[in-house]
Amino acid sequence: MMSEVSTAYVWGSGQWQAQNHWPSNDRALHYGDGLFETIRFAPDGSIPLWPYHKQRLLQGLCALNFPIDSFQCIEQALTQCPQNPLLAGKLLISRGPGPRGYAPPAEPELLLQWQAFTPPDWGHLRLPQGMVAGFSDIRLAIQPALAGFKHLNRLEQVLARQRFEPDWQEAVMLDTQGQVIEGCMSNLFLLENGQLVTPDLSGSGVNGVVRRWLLTHQNVIITPFGRERLLAADAVFFCNTLQGIVMASRIDGRQFEHPAAQDQIATLQKDLENLYA
Amino acid sequence: MMSEVSTAYVWGSGQWQAQNHWPSNDRALHYGDGLFETIRFAPDGSIPLWPYHKQRLLQGLCALNFPIDSFQCIEQALTQCPQNPLLAGKLLISRGPGPRGYAPPAEPELLLQWQAFTPPDWGHLRLPQGMVAGFSDIRLAIQPALAGFKHLNRLEQVLARQRFEPDWQEAVMLDTQGQVIEGCMSNLFLLENGQLVTPDLSGSGVNGVVRRWLLTHQNVIITPFGRERLLAADAVFFCNTLQGIVMASRIDGRQFEHPAAQDQIATLQKDLENLYA
Repeated sequence: MMSEVSTAYVWGSGQWQAQNHWPSNDRALHYGDGLFETIRFAPDGSIPLWPYHKQRLLQGLCALNFPIDSFQCIEQALTQCPQNPLLAGKLLISRGPGPRGYAPPAEPELLLQWQAFTPPDWGHLRLPQGMVAGFSDIRLAIQPALAGFKHLNRLEQVLARQRFEPDWQEAVMLDTQGQVIEGCMSNLFLLENGQLVTPDLSGSGVNGVVRRWLLTHQNVIITPFGRERLLAADAVFFCNTLQGIVMASRIDGRQFEHPAAQDQIATLQKDLENLYA
Repeated sequence: MMSEVSTAYVWGSGQWQAQNHWPSNDRALHYGDGLFETIRFAPDGSIPLWPYHKQRLLQGLCALNFPIDSFQCIEQALTQCPQNPLLAGKLLISRGPGPRGYAPPAEPELLLQWQAFTPPDWGHLRLPQGMVAGFSDIRLAIQPALAGFKHLNRLEQVLARQRFEPDWQEAVMLDTQGQVIEGCMSNLFLLENGQLVTPDLSGSGVNGVVRRWLLTHQNVIITPFGRERLLAADAVFFCNTLQGIVMASRIDGRQFEHPAAQDQIATLQKDLENLYA
């Protein structure tokens, strides 16, 4: 499942340079002061979900008060990123070096890192039987100022990932008030009598690119719900850029077996995969 | 107020090496997967508040599930740290390099960074009139799994620091339920008729070394309270390792002028300073 990681690249002077080190006084290292995106390319080098990556990047850059021209620089860097022949990569965006202390420099110099890798096969091909998951005992804090975008403060996910039971491929994460939010590494949808339902992410969670692609193209109800409603659904699926859409076979002992709902998920999987054909 | 930063050092093979770069695949950079401590030395090279640093490090290492021998390595590194003739430093502890993904390597190789600097003069000498502060509009999320210890997920502080009004030296931070927690860079105490009172930090905040030194040597009530109680106190003070203890002169327009309470604070300031004589 872990795919090969290639060299890291750092953006500077208008080009990517292979470089496996990073400045010691960088603010991403000291404070997590930055963002990241995991990107999957189509074979022609395009990024089918780019509008959703762009939307989230702009939200994050704005929330962290990055310089106004940051996005332009990121977009330029991405057009030149050394992804060939690999078809996925992680882009890390740091506010860059700074003196000691939380206050960012008046004119930060952004640092970008690119790590290309071979994407895994689509999740539903690797796991046609679906994923086994449980409920994480790490609850997500409610922080509207950081909700939705993909910042570098990821200790909750690190703690949750460490606590996976041996047979889990994912964990369902609730917030501190008991609402279902997402998977540790993905977003989450329910199917209830054919209706798609997904949690509200205004207080916690990462607003994923596949999630927003689904919201754009499907009729989805966004609403808070707890674990009982999740366990009572006809089907549950997880989604992210790399895995695509993968149904849950079992969550916390509850087995999901609903042929009609599974057919509906299979259609969504194909629709997403077709974007990358 | 910003003091000179010297070279960064990295711990390896049993000694500190001057090195201004850091591995690109480090987990502190990607996830904030680590801890830090800001340390002030006495002129004889001792660390007067070491027991409190040690206590917090152990709590953090345990909360993040770092290897069991991590503390031993940190303690050895600290005895050799190149602090002379500088008398303060920041120690950053990362879980070290790892492959892509939240799951830590089975056998992580810790990375330590040391940045020595000249400590600022004690806060009450620089600001005998006290500090001006306001209430931050960034609320601290409630996350018991990360409360108290000094991890590297510090975006809330970065956001709060960016929003300081021009005349603020500190900001009072409330949690998302409206309870007073701490300053952006320090802990916070009230004086009410001679009684010390400080917020409960079981849900948010950093449990500072000066805070715990005060709890050990003074009679302090630990209790949740809101902004009204803070504004009604006789005096408020902030404390951290580098600044020591500094009273608030004004918070959100409320002027603090209570000679007896200020005398009491001056005694605490002297007691702390004497540890570093």
